[in-house]
Amino acid sequence: MTDRIPIPRDPDNDHSTDAMTLRREFLRGRTGVGLTHLQQLSFEPGLTAGNIENLIGVAQVPVGLAGPLRIDGEHARGDFYIPLATTEGTLVASYSRGARVITESGGVKTTVVKTSMQRAPVFMFGDAPQARDFGQWLVTNFNGVRQAAEATTGYGQLVEIEQYNIGNLLYTRFNFTTGDAAGQNMTGKATYAACEWIRRSHPLHPEYMLSGAIDTDKKHSAMNLIRSRGRRVIAEVVIPAEILRRVMRVETSALFRARNIANAGAIQAGAAYNGPHAANGIAALFIATGQDAANVAECHAGITYAQYRDNGDYYWSVTLPSVIVGTRGGGTGLPTQQECLQILGCVGAGKADKLAEIVAAVVLAGDISLGCAVIAGDWVTSHERLGRNRPTS
Amino acid sequence: MTDRIPIPRDPDNDHSTDAMTLRREFLRGRTGVGLTHLQQLSFEPGLTAGNIENLIGVAQVPVGLAGPLRIDGEHARGDFYIPLATTEGTLVASYSRGARVITESGGVKTTVVKTSMQRAPVFMFGDAPQARDFGQWLVTNFNGVRQAAEATTGYGQLVEIEQYNIGNLLYTRFNFTTGDAAGQNMTGKATYAACEWIRRSHPLHPEYMLSGAIDTDKKHSAMNLIRSRGRRVIAEVVIPAEILRRVMRVETSALFRARNIANAGAIQAGAAYNGPHAANGIAALFIATGQDAANVAECHAGITYAQYRDNGDYYWSVTLPSVIVGTRGGGTGLPTQQECLQILGCVGAGKADKLAEIVAAVVLAGDISLGCAVIAGDWVTSHERLGRNRPTS
Amino acid sequence: MTDRIPIPRDPDNDHSTDAMTLRREFLRGRTGVGLTHLQQLSFEPGLTAGNIENLIGVAQVPVGLAGPLRIDGEHARGDFYIPLATTEGTLVASYSRGARVITESGGVKTTVVKTSMQRAPVFMFGDAPQARDFGQWLVTNFNGVRQAAEATTGYGQLVEIEQYNIGNLLYTRFNFTTGDAAGQNMTGKATYAACEWIRRSHPLHPEYMLSGAIDTDKKHSAMNLIRSRGRRVIAEVVIPAEILRRVMRVETSALFRARNIANAGAIQAGAAYNGPHAANGIAALFIATGQDAANVAECHAGITYAQYRDNGDYYWSVTLPSVIVGTRGGGTGLPTQQECLQILGCVGAGKADKLAEIVAAVVLAGDISLGCAVIAGDWVTSHERLGRNRPTS
Amino acid sequence: MTDRIPIPRDPDNDHSTDAMTLRREFLRGRTGVGLTHLQQLSFEPGLTAGNIENLIGVAQVPVGLAGPLRIDGEHARGDFYIPLATTEGTLVASYSRGARVITESGGVKTTVVKTSMQRAPVFMFGDAPQARDFGQWLVTNFNGVRQAAEATTGYGQLVEIEQYNIGNLLYTRFNFTTGDAAGQNMTGKATYAACEWIRRSHPLHPEYMLSGAIDTDKKHSAMNLIRSRGRRVIAEVVIPAEILRRVMRVETSALFRARNIANAGAIQAGAAYNGPHAANGIAALFIATGQDAANVAECHAGITYAQYRDNGDYYWSVTLPSVIVGTRGGGTGLPTQQECLQILGCVGAGKADKLAEIVAAVVLAGDISLGCAVIAGDWVTSHERLGRNRPTS
Repeated sequence: MTDRIPIPRDPDNDHSTDAMTLRREFLRGRTGVGLTHLQQLSFEPGLTAGNIENLIGVAQVPVGLAGPLRIDGEHARGDFYIPLATTEGTLVASYSRGARVITESGGVKTTVVKTSMQRAPVFMFGDAPQARDFGQWLVTNFNGVRQAAEATTGYGQLVEIEQYNIGNLLYTRFNFTTGDAAGQNMTGKATYAACEWIRRSHPLHPEYMLSGAIDTDKKHSAMNLIRSRGRRVIAEVVIPAEILRRVMRVETSALFRARNIANAGAIQAGAAYNGPHAANGIAALFIATGQDAANVAECHAGITYAQYRDNGDYYWSVTLPSVIVGTRGGGTGLPTQQECLQILGCVGAGKADKLAEIVAAVVLAGDISLGCAVIAGDWVTSHERLGRNRPTS
Repeated sequence: MTDRIPIPRDPDNDHSTDAMTLRREFLRGRTGVGLTHLQQLSFEPGLTAGNIENLIGVAQVPVGLAGPLRIDGEHARGDFYIPLATTEGTLVASYSRGARVITESGGVKTTVVKTSMQRAPVFMFGDAPQARDFGQWLVTNFNGVRQAAEATTGYGQLVEIEQYNIGNLLYTRFNFTTGDAAGQNMTGKATYAACEWIRRSHPLHPEYMLSGAIDTDKKHSAMNLIRSRGRRVIAEVVIPAEILRRVMRVETSALFRARNIANAGAIQAGAAYNGPHAANGIAALFIATGQDAANVAECHAGITYAQYRDNGDYYWSVTLPSVIVGTRGGGTGLPTQQECLQILGCVGAGKADKLAEIVAAVVLAGDISLGCAVIAGDWVTSHERLGRNRPTS
Repeated sequence: MTDRIPIPRDPDNDHSTDAMTLRREFLRGRTGVGLTHLQQLSFEPGLTAGNIENLIGVAQVPVGLAGPLRIDGEHARGDFYIPLATTEGTLVASYSRGARVITESGGVKTTVVKTSMQRAPVFMFGDAPQARDFGQWLVTNFNGVRQAAEATTGYGQLVEIEQYNIGNLLYTRFNFTTGDAAGQNMTGKATYAACEWIRRSHPLHPEYMLSGAIDTDKKHSAMNLIRSRGRRVIAEVVIPAEILRRVMRVETSALFRARNIANAGAIQAGAAYNGPHAANGIAALFIATGQDAANVAECHAGITYAQYRDNGDYYWSVTLPSVIVGTRGGGTGLPTQQECLQILGCVGAGKADKLAEIVAAVVLAGDISLGCAVIAGDWVTSHERLGRNRPTS
Repeated sequence: MTDRIPIPRDPDNDHSTDAMTLRREFLRGRTGVGLTHLQQLSFEPGLTAGNIENLIGVAQVPVGLAGPLRIDGEHARGDFYIPLATTEGTLVASYSRGARVITESGGVKTTVVKTSMQRAPVFMFGDAPQARDFGQWLVTNFNGVRQAAEATTGYGQLVEIEQYNIGNLLYTRFNFTTGDAAGQNMTGKATYAACEWIRRSHPLHPEYMLSGAIDTDKKHSAMNLIRSRGRRVIAEVVIPAEILRRVMRVETSALFRARNIANAGAIQAGAAYNGPHAANGIAALFIATGQDAANVAECHAGITYAQYRDNGDYYWSVTLPSVIVGTRGGGTGLPTQQECLQILGCVGAGKADKLAEIVAAVVLAGDISLGCAVIAGDWVTSHERLGRNRPTS
């Protein structure tokens, strides 16, 4: 076996231009690649401390502006211009088209109906009765657990502990509210403190693991669809038949027929989402605003529900049970991401609900556009026209 | 209702600095935001034509270097340094730690076992017997369908049409190989041509929609877990007990116990993945290399399978049924993304299998690191140390 | 179209021998079939009033006796002989063999960890904020709702109302405890009364449907796996390696390897149960004891979790989240079903928990037997030997 | 530990009245129960050989007659009277009411679109490339595998081997057609022979287990919903608005609205079936006709798809992907079960498709009745009226 050649690090300041240069030269030697573009940051590399290790530069992801999207939410109100970071041609145009339908229809109503972020420790016992009795102890001692958890954080609040007995194990979900942070780290720290308090305080001093896999962090799950992770958010709009006909060349009756076909298909496929493409808007908005793009796994799941009204109008809603966003922490503080948050008016305290509402509104806009395009038959042709540098194969 | 104020566009060349300036000034007027950093591209904006509309700049996402990761695949061979675009502190360090375990263990074996990309038109009939008979016609006339599809593309090949009858509908999945492109657009175009040929050729001239929702594009589904979307890829390694003990401070027996606890938890939760966090590595690698981050929805799903060997060694595998990658098209041609592909040696013809193998290898590295950290109890503490600009709440 | 010829009924007493004769002659005329055996009831047909309409006789399903099965539960304690109604040869023998392993190992421990039966009305509103606010009203007015529900029943108690917002709808699950009855009808009646009270009392007088499909009655669901329906019951046993080797010719290490293979397979398949065959024992016990065999849909789901101990012993548990049983109502009062309940000591007040524990214990016995047979390779051969009147094809 | 007291058996003939008496006395001694009714068989106990061990009698399950149900299938044609074995009051009346709607609408169209029964051996290898290459060998050597399998059976035919690689394992599904038998045993035997041939013939002589858990036998799974198990059957009917209004007091527009609400609920719940209650009719028909009631687990899953037509008519379809029925083997030969099969005209060769069509038609009848009752609001009241001996609590 040949030797393992580690990546060089600058012991003094590894988030520096010098450290980047060190690694650029290392890569040039190992792979012959020059990093002409990667290292053209517009800001001090030190800003990335806490966001990355072994920094070698920045990926430049094109950002387009979609909108205006009129939102009539409880936290987001007004006409929004949406920065979307993507490399999929037609996406921004498509979301803009959906936004136009919404805006002409008077705007999308958005509602946050639930908020929680989880860590999910599992506690181990000799047998099931012990595990069940421990669960009752957890209920009785909730205040002690809560205090231990909340002592580690100024924002997070422990609101509920769900319990799932399996054999001699008790799986739990510790549900927190986390203010304006997405909160995965905050809840990890708080839950760890709570578990240590539990281990000390319970007569059996139970062994535990900080994750019993039911959080379910960075993955879609029925659990998240049912119990939520982050925020459960709804966006809804009533689209007059005339607008849909004029802007999208689609009849609402055809749209409703297609909805029923898509529902049956989604059930057949066991799909995490029965609408067209929540993931596209979410990924693009997350990259632009410094959210964790890995959370697309959870966030893209949801339920589209529609009504065909007697007058031909069309009620269209999307319910996203696991929208994970923050306006503090993570990548939100980086310069380009801050600017995108500014465009949305989501900088500062108390903005996470607003951002969550915007996410749901954007998803609805994108679904209206693609959902209609599939029916109108111009889905392929629009990709042809706008996606110009696609492989011509 | 106030008027809808559209985003300005430059009719001559909308992927230009002038057009960006136009929109910057528009945004300044509407929102007061300046875009100091967003518009500092290191390349000509015209390069983004086909990738974005209404360009306002680029999101700069920090890229760190993980590795070296020794891969003993059929397409990827050697010690790789992995560019990861993320803003989650500790992620690059964690993947590097997993990569060290793998490399010291002799490397990860990677295997592509299936390749296919789908479009899923649904055909509509008067009753179920018609739909079923049409399905038999599709089998008989496969060559005609195939020729109509492949006439639209130089790379895509139609290899199979799956059929799912529901009521008077026939849902299908057209399975293509797509060479080095991820292929969603290529298959859309080819399937559209095939459907038009079908509509002309079949005596009933059946109505269809280009998507019956079972592709299932940009969403996780049981269908994709079972039938694959993109590439089904396996990464596997046998880790000697000594290495795991020394590097990760974990016993393989404890790891195997935790695996069984995680399996039960994943089944309880109905999780799309029973390992720790495939989505993290996938999202970071996708953003860095110009893949479609929305596909994290499909790609993060998979199955972790492990064996505890008699000598205490630990066999660890991840199977990802829906790895969607391309080395042509999409965002792969943009400057920073090209550099990241170069670092991986994934530029040029015939590299998509190699990239898919790297993805699976990276996921395994990350799972080893986090899976052990959860047991060793330093999960929270490492986030504390490295994730410095997290909210201190 | 020919005329529709209705089934004759006896207006005076349709659960009588005369009414049966009427229909026998009707069938003889229409189909030429004689019903020689169907009408040989051992009891007065009037006993079936409330259980069936248009009675034409009884299906005689063979009942075999499995056991003894030693149960060390909280409600079920002792050595049980289990009546199983089935026509699948080898089943009773197989369950007996598993029961022997358990009994020699000192018995199975059984635990009921949760009890609830649901009806799931959905309430309809103009928009999502209304639906969400109504949900808060439900919390505030829980006592009023509860009193309206409980006024209809002497046993049922409303303990919780779960809420799931989708668009402008609020889906709910009304959770009841139902004493010794399975409780589907009781909860239907109580929930209907509660809904009527709600419609009268809430200022919007919301429209509702008594079922929004999330109960999920008579069907498996992720919801039931997570939130339970009926009783969540655990059965667990520690099997010494020596016993498994002697009785089943299987090494516990091989069993644990097979468990991990089965877990991966179950995750791949998206299976409702990751053990061998819960449905067999449940169906056979349900038919014998007058439970609703349609509930096999919900009850067969569950989670097998095992541990391989350092001394080679094997901890085997099954967790069944949705065991729906009653010792009152339904078919429990019919003569043969009563006798089977008597054999189990499950007649009279306060026996539903005991029956639920027996169900879980029986499932574990069956899984041990089949799980070991698959490894030992005598699965096919035992079917050959015992299943003698199977088609010889 | 007290001693284990085994159930007595008659070494000469254990399926005899003497053997039953032996066990009756044993039970009387152990439990004090008399078995007055259980042992009143109307036929020679020897007939149950091959269906049961340790026979102690028969469970008498009430059978009611529903119908007439007009079926316009490819195998089932005419007006059918349906024997349903159940103890749930109102069930037979409800299915009859749905049958009336269907019959007045001109009958239900039924179609079998796929037939297959599986065993699912898993093959074990050193690494994933070996497993994948073995999969290719299986394709090349399909004829040899098929011949080995089919040598064990006069009816079963091996038509396809599905492959699913996970780590170093190859999970397979051997798909057979099995004539008029349900075929689980036939396929077990044939697959075992095939596996032994494979082990001898392949150069690596691979180890295997006869079940890798993806059959998925006696359990619901996404796999079965997608790939089928048994027969995939569709039942469909167009109901004129007038008939629904007159017979069920429901408007088709209200029904379609409810369908959309139920679809969203089913997706939220992750339900195996999005219609009202397939399991009820299936369980009742299975017990009456000697099918395996444990298969309710697989069979109850399915997809309801509806269309609201311009003239107000309502197209209603159910698609059941995993209907497992046989007219030979299992309990079909027992006297009362034979009579029920005779009533349906399903005795003799070539009748399994007919029985499968009847199952789907019955499910549709039941869903029409309950689906309308939920809307019309008489669901609770009909249970009240007919379910007279329910607990009055």
